[in-house]
Amino acid sequence: MRSELISVGTELLLGNIINTNTAFLSEELAKLGIDVYFHVTVGDNRERLTSTLRTAMERSDLVITTGGLGPTSDDITKETIAEVAGRKLVLHRDEFRKLEAFFNKSGRKMTPNNIKQAYLPEGSLVVPNDNGTAPGAIVELNGTTIIMLPGPPVEMKPMFLEKIVPYLRERSKQALVSVTLRFFGIGESALEHALYDLIKGQTEPTIATYAGDGEVKVRLTARSDAGGEVPPSITDMMEKIKERLGRYIYSYNDRPLHEVTAELLLKSGKTLAVAESCTGGKLSAFITSVPGISKAYMGAVISYSNQMKQKFLGVTDQTLEKFGAVSEETALQMAEGVRRACDADIGLAVTGIAGPDGGTEQKPVGLVYIALSSGGHTEVRELMFSGNREKVRTYAAKNALNLLRMYLVGDIASIDKKS
Amino acid sequence: MRSELISVGTELLLGNIINTNTAFLSEELAKLGIDVYFHVTVGDNRERLTSTLRTAMERSDLVITTGGLGPTSDDITKETIAEVAGRKLVLHRDEFRKLEAFFNKSGRKMTPNNIKQAYLPEGSLVVPNDNGTAPGAIVELNGTTIIMLPGPPVEMKPMFLEKIVPYLRERSKQALVSVTLRFFGIGESALEHALYDLIKGQTEPTIATYAGDGEVKVRLTARSDAGGEVPPSITDMMEKIKERLGRYIYSYNDRPLHEVTAELLLKSGKTLAVAESCTGGKLSAFITSVPGISKAYMGAVISYSNQMKQKFLGVTDQTLEKFGAVSEETALQMAEGVRRACDADIGLAVTGIAGPDGGTEQKPVGLVYIALSSGGHTEVRELMFSGNREKVRTYAAKNALNLLRMYLVGDIASIDKKS
Repeated sequence: MRSELISVGTELLLGNIINTNTAFLSEELAKLGIDVYFHVTVGDNRERLTSTLRTAMERSDLVITTGGLGPTSDDITKETIAEVAGRKLVLHRDEFRKLEAFFNKSGRKMTPNNIKQAYLPEGSLVVPNDNGTAPGAIVELNGTTIIMLPGPPVEMKPMFLEKIVPYLRERSKQALVSVTLRFFGIGESALEHALYDLIKGQTEPTIATYAGDGEVKVRLTARSDAGGEVPPSITDMMEKIKERLGRYIYSYNDRPLHEVTAELLLKSGKTLAVAESCTGGKLSAFITSVPGISKAYMGAVISYSNQMKQKFLGVTDQTLEKFGAVSEETALQMAEGVRRACDADIGLAVTGIAGPDGGTEQKPVGLVYIALSSGGHTEVRELMFSGNREKVRTYAAKNALNLLRMYLVGDIASIDKKS
Repeated sequence: MRSELISVGTELLLGNIINTNTAFLSEELAKLGIDVYFHVTVGDNRERLTSTLRTAMERSDLVITTGGLGPTSDDITKETIAEVAGRKLVLHRDEFRKLEAFFNKSGRKMTPNNIKQAYLPEGSLVVPNDNGTAPGAIVELNGTTIIMLPGPPVEMKPMFLEKIVPYLRERSKQALVSVTLRFFGIGESALEHALYDLIKGQTEPTIATYAGDGEVKVRLTARSDAGGEVPPSITDMMEKIKERLGRYIYSYNDRPLHEVTAELLLKSGKTLAVAESCTGGKLSAFITSVPGISKAYMGAVISYSNQMKQKFLGVTDQTLEKFGAVSEETALQMAEGVRRACDADIGLAVTGIAGPDGGTEQKPVGLVYIALSSGGHTEVRELMFSGNREKVRTYAAKNALNLLRMYLVGDIASIDKKS
């Protein structure tokens, strides 16, 4: 199946925002074995959107549009598709009622232009939007299927994963199966070096590596039978990779580090308390993004001031004076202190210098300590990151998560003292 | 001048990388007053690249390609453009010598496929690459100019800024100036409704609205003189918008809510402590992403457990029993408690139900209370959000930031009790 993605929105052509929808959709379509041949971005302009749609319908079996479904006058995707497809726009009663309920619930007044969102091309499948007011739609035409999705990623992504993927899976005959391994603690080039012969000789499965936000992923893709089971070619390759790099693999099914770690924590039956300094809430935000974590996560103390480190966490005057707020000793006292103060089984702490200011020659920007305390047992690691404030904070939070994960799987000794 | 951007590379169509080149180029072209009408992404495929180029040459005055200039066999941009333009590829001696020098210096052997990079369409202007081996090129054809740039942003961006911008500035007569206003507490459709006549009658400046993550932006764009100063047409329009919607505007220069709020806090000389429940660190992570905030932000208590609400924040048994952890009363006690416990001037608190579980009929998922305490003064608001866990958490954090902002500008009374 040949597919094509059309992003609608003048803001994209003005460079106001980076288009992340196309990469997301392309990756998901690749998993389904659907080839993407073109991405086209066009503004909120009827004439140019019309010509873009006509071209797409000529050359592609599947056209997915994002954007332009909202209530405002420059949201013209539905209207233009209806016209090109020769369909009327009709009021969809369920969607209209949902809009009414939404505005009632939020206490806001529904302005007339909002009703526009409940109008959809006649005969289309309506795709409810659980995270916004504009529904999506699928129009099946002679030879081409057009899928309309909202533009904001927070609405588009769940709609695609939950509602469009099952729809497409049914129509796609020859499915590909992918397995994605996630690694922590190894860089992309070191990983490629270690797998060089496998990557070079790849046929089935194909091996693709991706890097981002301090992690590396490896995706193995192969043809599968109708059942969609993982074929032996993939499981064999997984074994080979595991033999070489198993200690860095934290997920065999593309789940992110905070989910894997949270699940291990919930399974362990242990409770966790967190003390954060330079990460300023980022570590806790990662952990608390996982539904149901309140069973294990007691809470956190974000101790930006020394005063809070002392009062809430019991970090001593002597430690702060002798070693400073960014030190092994302070990190350890923070982890122990928060564990005791919150009556938790495990205490996890981060302290460091995120920059851009506050660094010295001895303690430069990017220096971070992470520590874990669990009863009689303590662990601490010194880390050094380069990059801007957000990068240092994100890497520090992820390394703390990984320390917790390694502790929970009983393999903490294998994290290098300096990593 | 109508322009169009063509990104060449199968890796983009597979979703392996996010295309950041188009947003960068679009923004830079907008500054030069050059309209971008299309972005097209196409793979390393001769046939599809040919048809994409032909379409672009028909409809655009300026076509900028990125990618496909390198030494490997799937780098086909130059060859295809030469063919479409009816030009031969000829060896460019200077570029050949530079390649030789590069390989001599790096001690690597120049493989034959590298020489390919010194071949360029006959009659083209060569654009040296200071950050890589593949030069760019400009081909001026009848009616259309084609500019070929390398794909890696680290090579493309400096080449564009240093060498292409001066070239284009000479050909483009006028520059545009934009001002972006940011709003909080009003939806996109209500905003458009309030500005309907201005948007409908727009000529100079043009008015564009954007929505995302619970906020709305309005961008005003107009022609400017050579100096690039904001013209009176924009300042007049800003005044008109301010008259109608001033209470919702938090930034006149496109700065995000957490930066604006952090700056107000720093200016006020007051200190802040935060108590978070459902946001689980997200509110603090927003605040602490701003460099230098440690002068004002003391820290936070993330009290996921009732026990922590009691022990650290002094929320009473009676309050929790009678009103529950998600209530006005608890939110107020959290704000007061964290202010006192951290010896701060202002306490800011959030408690709510982020979901997907934990909701009841009386207290559904999405119900959030935010509270502020400052000495004798307290404020609390009930909010109701729809959407998934991450959306509820993000919106809750942003509304808390906005409560703080309104307090700092002395306008807290103007936040609706239900917003």
